Amino acid sequence: MNAPVDIKSYMLEVGRRARAASRELARADTAAKNRALVAGAKAVRRDAKKLLAANADDAKGARVAGKDAAFIDRLTLTEKSIEGMAQGLEQVAQLPDPVGEVTELREQPSGIKVGKMRVPLGVIGIIYESRPNVTADAAALCLKAGNACILRGGSEAVRSNRAIAACVHDGLRAAGMPEAAVQVLETADRAAVGILLSMNEYVDIIVPRGGKDLIERVMRESRIPMIKHLDGVCHVYIDERADIDKAIRIADNAKTQRYGVCNAMETLLVNEAIAPKVLPALAKIYIDKGVELRGDEGARKLVPQMKRATEEDWYTEYLAPILAVRLVPDLDTAIAHIGKYGSQHTDAIVTEDEARARRFLREVDSSSVMVNASTRFADGFEYGLGAEVGISTDKLHARGPVGLEGLTSQKYVVFGSGQIRA
Amino acid sequence: MNAPVDIKSYMLEVGRRARAASRELARADTAAKNRALVAGAKAVRRDAKKLLAANADDAKGARVAGKDAAFIDRLTLTEKSIEGMAQGLEQVAQLPDPVGEVTELREQPSGIKVGKMRVPLGVIGIIYESRPNVTADAAALCLKAGNACILRGGSEAVRSNRAIAACVHDGLRAAGMPEAAVQVLETADRAAVGILLSMNEYVDIIVPRGGKDLIERVMRESRIPMIKHLDGVCHVYIDERADIDKAIRIADNAKTQRYGVCNAMETLLVNEAIAPKVLPALAKIYIDKGVELRGDEGARKLVPQMKRATEEDWYTEYLAPILAVRLVPDLDTAIAHIGKYGSQHTDAIVTEDEARARRFLREVDSSSVMVNASTRFADGFEYGLGAEVGISTDKLHARGPVGLEGLTSQKYVVFGSGQIRA
Repeated sequence: MNAPVDIKSYMLEVGRRARAASRELARADTAAKNRALVAGAKAVRRDAKKLLAANADDAKGARVAGKDAAFIDRLTLTEKSIEGMAQGLEQVAQLPDPVGEVTELREQPSGIKVGKMRVPLGVIGIIYESRPNVTADAAALCLKAGNACILRGGSEAVRSNRAIAACVHDGLRAAGMPEAAVQVLETADRAAVGILLSMNEYVDIIVPRGGKDLIERVMRESRIPMIKHLDGVCHVYIDERADIDKAIRIADNAKTQRYGVCNAMETLLVNEAIAPKVLPALAKIYIDKGVELRGDEGARKLVPQMKRATEEDWYTEYLAPILAVRLVPDLDTAIAHIGKYGSQHTDAIVTEDEARARRFLREVDSSSVMVNASTRFADGFEYGLGAEVGISTDKLHARGPVGLEGLTSQKYVVFGSGQIRA
Repeated sequence: MNAPVDIKSYMLEVGRRARAASRELARADTAAKNRALVAGAKAVRRDAKKLLAANADDAKGARVAGKDAAFIDRLTLTEKSIEGMAQGLEQVAQLPDPVGEVTELREQPSGIKVGKMRVPLGVIGIIYESRPNVTADAAALCLKAGNACILRGGSEAVRSNRAIAACVHDGLRAAGMPEAAVQVLETADRAAVGILLSMNEYVDIIVPRGGKDLIERVMRESRIPMIKHLDGVCHVYIDERADIDKAIRIADNAKTQRYGVCNAMETLLVNEAIAPKVLPALAKIYIDKGVELRGDEGARKLVPQMKRATEEDWYTEYLAPILAVRLVPDLDTAIAHIGKYGSQHTDAIVTEDEARARRFLREVDSSSVMVNASTRFADGFEYGLGAEVGISTDKLHARGPVGLEGLTSQKYVVFGSGQIRA
């Protein structure tokens, strides 16, 4: 569709087209969906130069608008990242199709057979920031799961997104599927998001991907259910019965392997009994890597270079080389701390004690709970989902990394032979 | 807790107590939960006279307030319905405990093992009308699934609900579990609902059970995700290749077995080719039972007694002895009609043609889709769930009849042996 005249009518037309396309997609067979994905990948490779040119225009605009280097970095496409997009489309084509599977079919006393069939959600609206590669990823996952999607990327990436969408449309046409299966909003008008969030007749689910401001806005305004990820205040708890070597490796990796990601550790909890054996060595590693440490009194006695942590620190997702550290007397205190200050994202225990590991797994109410592994593993690829549309910290529907299955629902199917209710 | 002084502080205290209780419940073992349920059933039987007395007071109040006979009927407890409540508690004790089960555990290339553990949702707020038996049912299901609940029944039933809660509390105490696992709001103040819907810190999910006004209010106001059931505009489509005997039995049962229920048929779609053989006979049955028929032109040619259906009729959930009837040329038109006018609740096809049955199952986007069975089967008991907290017409999380599993979530559990992310 071309650029809008009246934003409201434009959005409603996008919605209508998406709904119509979603009905065709729900009927589409696996082979057709895969053909569209593979042809889309081919178009991305063929149009690599066009994508780079469109992206260069976007980057220029963003620089003129005064965006910072990190922003430009996320926005910028390279030959390598374009090849990555093409491979991503091909990988999603390889994943098993979740749609249509009937499970749990059981005969009931009345004689009817009742089971569940996995089905697409319908139309998915995805709102994200200026990262053009999300356009290809999100389109691929929605398509494979049989959903139409409406993609609203950051306005600074609009030329790049349009060029990527053109490739995806080539793929859809090659497979005889409707182009409206994937629609990228052709407008920089900020009102578009508000209208999208109100179109509950045409949109079944909203996936906001981005910073806290975006997600809080969506939570406030949306009349449509969403799959979202709010904060990642992740913990590692080093238990009294931890293997010291594992504890150091995991606590190091969880914090320092990458700082700006949601599954990085933000608070380290250490059992008092083991702290003298593990915390000084860990602190040395962190300080050498330039990580600022903020501890409670107990931790500061062992590592005097630590700053004093405030109550605020326990709630904070730093997304930076800063770590809060607290000593705890026992597992209960660790679990209670995570329950009070955590964000139900990802938390890990390091212990050789199976009973304590079991309690931690059961009682910590987070989307991923780990024993003797780094929180950095909380990721769709690492979990074997093949790809992810994001990590959900909600409890309903999809929790943790959301792959194809999270983009589907199940309906009851009933097979009778004329049964009526008595 | 006693009656509130300040409604806001009262509600927040209820929330805090529920959250604390939910943590204990998440840890509770199956035997303890079952002991609480069985002891609760015993208390209900023991206190039957008290329950009847409290209920008589409620009914008197409702009569004074000018409530109609149907309202009083739903409000009124009898010796039989009290015994039904006790048996309901015992039946939920018999159901398998969904909590704690780990499934899909698979080793990943990194060496970590990733699986899913079924866990409680946490705190569930249930808002319902003046049907005291819902208090016992909802408490039992929430408890068995490991959730704390906050129950807000209709204000006219407050004495009955308090008396039932006292029995449930006896059961909880007998099992050494916190009374705050089940809290009935001790206030008739209508502001309580608004506050409940805003307490997203303490309440994980809202289940509104009741009329459309209630559910629309909750949709408008709630900041908390919900499992809800909006409309039940259910269809039966009699295909050209239907067995006529089955078609008549099913279409009769789906409409007339009970009128005021969400899974009753509201619109009958009949293939034009078979209509002359099936519609006149069906119309006779309906008319004999006092069902008012409203048809399109084609239907009225075959059954002249039919009134003319308006566009409005196709959207209407009558919950009454009224039926809309439309002739359709083919399966596509039937599916399109259901997509446009239906409410995604329950729809059935009557056909002997397997390919058409499969298309209907796949393409009709409703929480239950049936072949050759009455829509009246859409029910937790009939589906073998043991009990239900309601029927969801949402697509996320729980769709269709919601039993114990719908009151739980799954989290990822990861078992490592010191793995870190490369």
